[in-house]
Amino acid sequence: MKNYWFSKAVPTTLLVILALPNLSCAAEGMWTLDNLPLAKLQSQYGYKPSGEWVKNVMLSSARLALGCSGSFVSKDGLVMTNHHCASECIEQISTAQKNYMNDGFLSKSREAEIVCPAMEVNRLEDIQDVTEQVKKATAGLDGNAYKDAQNAVRAKLTSACVGSDKTSTRCDLVDLYHGGRYHIYKYHRYADVRLVWAPEKAAAFFGGDPDNFMFPRYDLDMSLVRVYENGKPAQIKNFFPFSKNGAEENELVFVTGHPGSTQRQLTVAQLLSLRDIGLVDRLLRLAELRGVIEQYRTTSPEAARTAEGTLFGVENSYKALYGELQTLLDPAFMKKKLEEENALRKFVASKPALQSKVGGAWSAIEKAQEKYRALNVRVSSIEGGRALMSEYFFHARDLVRAADEKIKPDAERLPEYSDARLQEVEEQILSAAPIYPEFEKVKLVFALTKMREKLGPDDAFVKQILGKASPEQLASDLIKRSTLNDPAVRKALWTGGKDAIAKSDDPFIKLVISIDAQARAIRKQYEHEVESVVQKNTELIAQAMFAQSGTSAYPDATFSLRLSYGQVKGWDEAGSKVPAFTDFSGAFARETGADPFALPPSWHAAKGKLNQAQRLNFVTDNDIIGGNSGSPMINRNGEIVGLIFDGNIHSLGGAFWFDQRVNRAVAVHSSGILEALDKIYDAKDLVKEVTTK
Amino acid sequence: MKNYWFSKAVPTTLLVILALPNLSCAAEGMWTLDNLPLAKLQSQYGYKPSGEWVKNVMLSSARLALGCSGSFVSKDGLVMTNHHCASECIEQISTAQKNYMNDGFLSKSREAEIVCPAMEVNRLEDIQDVTEQVKKATAGLDGNAYKDAQNAVRAKLTSACVGSDKTSTRCDLVDLYHGGRYHIYKYHRYADVRLVWAPEKAAAFFGGDPDNFMFPRYDLDMSLVRVYENGKPAQIKNFFPFSKNGAEENELVFVTGHPGSTQRQLTVAQLLSLRDIGLVDRLLRLAELRGVIEQYRTTSPEAARTAEGTLFGVENSYKALYGELQTLLDPAFMKKKLEEENALRKFVASKPALQSKVGGAWSAIEKAQEKYRALNVRVSSIEGGRALMSEYFFHARDLVRAADEKIKPDAERLPEYSDARLQEVEEQILSAAPIYPEFEKVKLVFALTKMREKLGPDDAFVKQILGKASPEQLASDLIKRSTLNDPAVRKALWTGGKDAIAKSDDPFIKLVISIDAQARAIRKQYEHEVESVVQKNTELIAQAMFAQSGTSAYPDATFSLRLSYGQVKGWDEAGSKVPAFTDFSGAFARETGADPFALPPSWHAAKGKLNQAQRLNFVTDNDIIGGNSGSPMINRNGEIVGLIFDGNIHSLGGAFWFDQRVNRAVAVHSSGILEALDKIYDAKDLVKEVTTK
Repeated sequence: MKNYWFSKAVPTTLLVILALPNLSCAAEGMWTLDNLPLAKLQSQYGYKPSGEWVKNVMLSSARLALGCSGSFVSKDGLVMTNHHCASECIEQISTAQKNYMNDGFLSKSREAEIVCPAMEVNRLEDIQDVTEQVKKATAGLDGNAYKDAQNAVRAKLTSACVGSDKTSTRCDLVDLYHGGRYHIYKYHRYADVRLVWAPEKAAAFFGGDPDNFMFPRYDLDMSLVRVYENGKPAQIKNFFPFSKNGAEENELVFVTGHPGSTQRQLTVAQLLSLRDIGLVDRLLRLAELRGVIEQYRTTSPEAARTAEGTLFGVENSYKALYGELQTLLDPAFMKKKLEEENALRKFVASKPALQSKVGGAWSAIEKAQEKYRALNVRVSSIEGGRALMSEYFFHARDLVRAADEKIKPDAERLPEYSDARLQEVEEQILSAAPIYPEFEKVKLVFALTKMREKLGPDDAFVKQILGKASPEQLASDLIKRSTLNDPAVRKALWTGGKDAIAKSDDPFIKLVISIDAQARAIRKQYEHEVESVVQKNTELIAQAMFAQSGTSAYPDATFSLRLSYGQVKGWDEAGSKVPAFTDFSGAFARETGADPFALPPSWHAAKGKLNQAQRLNFVTDNDIIGGNSGSPMINRNGEIVGLIFDGNIHSLGGAFWFDQRVNRAVAVHSSGILEALDKIYDAKDLVKEVTTK
Repeated sequence: MKNYWFSKAVPTTLLVILALPNLSCAAEGMWTLDNLPLAKLQSQYGYKPSGEWVKNVMLSSARLALGCSGSFVSKDGLVMTNHHCASECIEQISTAQKNYMNDGFLSKSREAEIVCPAMEVNRLEDIQDVTEQVKKATAGLDGNAYKDAQNAVRAKLTSACVGSDKTSTRCDLVDLYHGGRYHIYKYHRYADVRLVWAPEKAAAFFGGDPDNFMFPRYDLDMSLVRVYENGKPAQIKNFFPFSKNGAEENELVFVTGHPGSTQRQLTVAQLLSLRDIGLVDRLLRLAELRGVIEQYRTTSPEAARTAEGTLFGVENSYKALYGELQTLLDPAFMKKKLEEENALRKFVASKPALQSKVGGAWSAIEKAQEKYRALNVRVSSIEGGRALMSEYFFHARDLVRAADEKIKPDAERLPEYSDARLQEVEEQILSAAPIYPEFEKVKLVFALTKMREKLGPDDAFVKQILGKASPEQLASDLIKRSTLNDPAVRKALWTGGKDAIAKSDDPFIKLVISIDAQARAIRKQYEHEVESVVQKNTELIAQAMFAQSGTSAYPDATFSLRLSYGQVKGWDEAGSKVPAFTDFSGAFARETGADPFALPPSWHAAKGKLNQAQRLNFVTDNDIIGGNSGSPMINRNGEIVGLIFDGNIHSLGGAFWFDQRVNRAVAVHSSGILEALDKIYDAKDLVKEVTTK
């Protein structure tokens, strides 16, 4: 349960939360690459991927550390992802004078490719099973002892995996089947990533929020970046070249990527507390924040520009979570979940040994939900950072905490500051990404106001933060006096360590120091009373599921590399057929001329040259979810036939189940990409690069 | 189910939604004056109100037509209510140059009292039981036929009651026990209402939204208006004089007023659809609108002033509905409701005659909920006016519809345009209340954006409204071209009738004409498939309840006059005692100096003179709810001892049940009022007037 990190995730993460679920349906499943359903593929499609094919898929797939997927598409380090996965970079390199979100960007040469201040690309290179080591480390432990042991073994295993090459290696302990299996995933890290091409947002996100999660669709939601090593384009052995013709109706296609998180294995008690507490609370906060930002952006073009990315993140999350809520409110869904849970519990009860070990897991999790309900507001406000949501605060906290944590033994640190992660933290802190004080103030006023509303004006924490000031007064004062928006200031504090932090007069640094003990304490309490209970007992339930059905099931998504398979096909929407493909003519037909239904000038200029019947977007029944944004869609030959960028509205319940009848993944068609690169953007070199095998 | 009118209610209604619930608890009940629990009062408190006492209470109580309560407090027509019940008037008579919300207002003489442009005060004068006539009219009918017959009999009965004196008489058909009883309430109308005194909002609403629905509290949430007839202060026979010392701990007190709406008799199916659909949807809309207005108000002092009332309405509704949602999410509450419903159904099943008549009512209501779920978005968007929320639109619709309806026979009209109501509609349309185009545009952009989001950009209604325009473009264009903000223009259209409407070039008039058939059709469908089914079957359940327990129960609140009784007392909050009273010293102690915790200069100036120990606010266990705002609290002698203005946080679930342990009504203490009038506001004449018997 990492829901409480959400407030930070809003501005920085670009997960398009997609999705899909029926445990026995043909295309369901986000499979780990070491456990593909090969027999099923063979029997259903007459195709069985070879080991070599799978290895190539793994090495050609990319992960964007901030929450997206991508793929290597040339030997010279070209990486394809979505526009909305690179938009943070595109915004960060834009200025009031030159807005690449509006205008798009095409690098005239490799030398002119622009460094993305905060982008990191990973390639999975190795998977190691460490289940036994992890289980041994936590055996017999409860609560904080369990959590501490887990943190320690994670630090040990990941640090050993990273070794001395921290700059180019990243290792994660990956939890599969909720503790049923633990793997170490070893990635090659690329921290020098440069923007090569991005279309105008008007083309990438044509239809905007109204069309988000909808289909038919007409979006060129794509960008190209390039990874560099030692100042030169990285040389890549494994990559996916573009297919000549792209995907056809009913064709078998694969999606390889990093689905962020699914909740298909939650117990009914967890689903209910997610519905009644987690989702409603987050939605209400997002709704109000959305109103604030919508209105703020009308005040000036610069306000609109600087708030654009956050607004997209907020609207995208809002629509996705609203869709999830609708699924949780569907009585048919809840009935199915209850039946599945009862069947598993009955199976457990029928095996005395299993029953004595696992039988109490469900009620333990249910009890932990009561604690969750009691702690949720405090933990999300104080440790989750909702109370002080702003780039200033999050930088200040990273600086203060990293200084404290770095001097501890690796195994005793907060996991986000372990040796294996510190490089990433440092790069974030030193990033040249601009911070806009005026917009930060808007967010901080909102955050402080909600803090007072949620905890109450008489709460000791609220009084400590606000004193006699109003949210407006405090936010103005803090932001006026802070210099943490200057990367050089942050660098000095980072390199200066605990001494520099202690001497700092920065009001955010002082604020973080003044509340950090409380924040750590509430986190500790939450981990002790909720997280560790849930984790430990979910591990037990996972064991029961293995006993029931082995690993013939796939694990919940955990932002680790997965393969899904499916076919290109439309669906029946309330009796009428939604076709699988859209084309360029449809985009022009849908245009009203008013944002977000206005195509950019480049499209109008190229209209006569374009093949209007060229496929632009399409849908498949692949099982994907948020984090799969930017995933390549490939054919049997390992060629790019599409680029995942969304799911349809029915896919939003996919967090919890897979309904193959109507859940669809939405992609840009590979031939539509080539058509646009060639005729609209005149990017002949890029066309050549991505079509070269 | 009038929930779908809500979007209009936000800016104009000032219901503080309070509340309280346990069917057999001592102080529970909002009793009609013709059915007081006299025996209970006698046995519990040794006090039995006389017929004369009750009559005096009825005639001394006032109703504010826009959604509040009040009381006559002098023979010269002085009416006491809350500041937040008069704040619409206070805002309307304010300008950019003179802001009475900030500065307060005290009339120097009767001549200087300022006319409130849209305030109407009613006094209940007679109650007639018309149950048989109504039931006869609808007997054997279903769906639209049922609804039409009900509208016709309502028009007939209310018009007959009003007679020729439309200016000073108002008659309502009052539904009690959900169709168990129907009464005609005849009111004396006062449409000339003038502001006499109001404190600064900083004093009236000290603590603002953070302290709303909270206690301890320190608010002087009061105003005085005066009703006029023929240009002179109305002469009043029955009124409540102020008590000399006010209420003491544990004293028996009565609240007389107009609780707006409770849902204590809803079936479980209705509670679930209210929880899952109605409340969550309204809360999300309110949250976003709140964000929009919060941010808008930061753009200029004039923006803050013109948006203030709407923001209060939105925040107040948001907090109240959020509290209601928490109750509906409480498993203990749902369990109790289910038990009650099952007990009643078991009782019905045990009586064959009752079972054959009533037995199917619950499942009929449950089925209607499915229709409600299917229709909710369309009916609230199109007929409820959410899609076009703005004063322009609501005026235009009243003008267009009234012109259509006036020429029909009374019995065939939409009920809100029946003869008995038309006077009120006219006064609203001709009101001099200012309309602020800039703020209206903000609301309209929001409304249009949400319309497109909720119905989808491809919906035919959405396409008809927006055409090729964006919400911003359309809202700007409509408001720029409309002159409906000018009362003279509205007057010409009102008096010109259908001809004038047909010739009008006003874009809002034309818009309303273009969609009115659709709006009426969806309303008709909703009334046919949901409302009439629910009403008819709820009537049946009411009969079953009468058979089970007679009228020893009180009916759900329906904005009709009710008396509740209770005692002055605090409560236990998580183990610590909340005292019943606060005093002036507490207000100064709570002050931070930053809005909303800044007292006005007048309080600081008077600080030395004030009796700091004087009681200011207090709580009682009276059973009240939104609409009771402004209710007088009286003692056995019919003297004012307090002024209801809020309920505590636990009262919010009172919409659904009454929990006497913790639910409390919050009032201004009568002696605190006198102290403030005398020492802070130097209103000696008013002190004299309200203390004269």
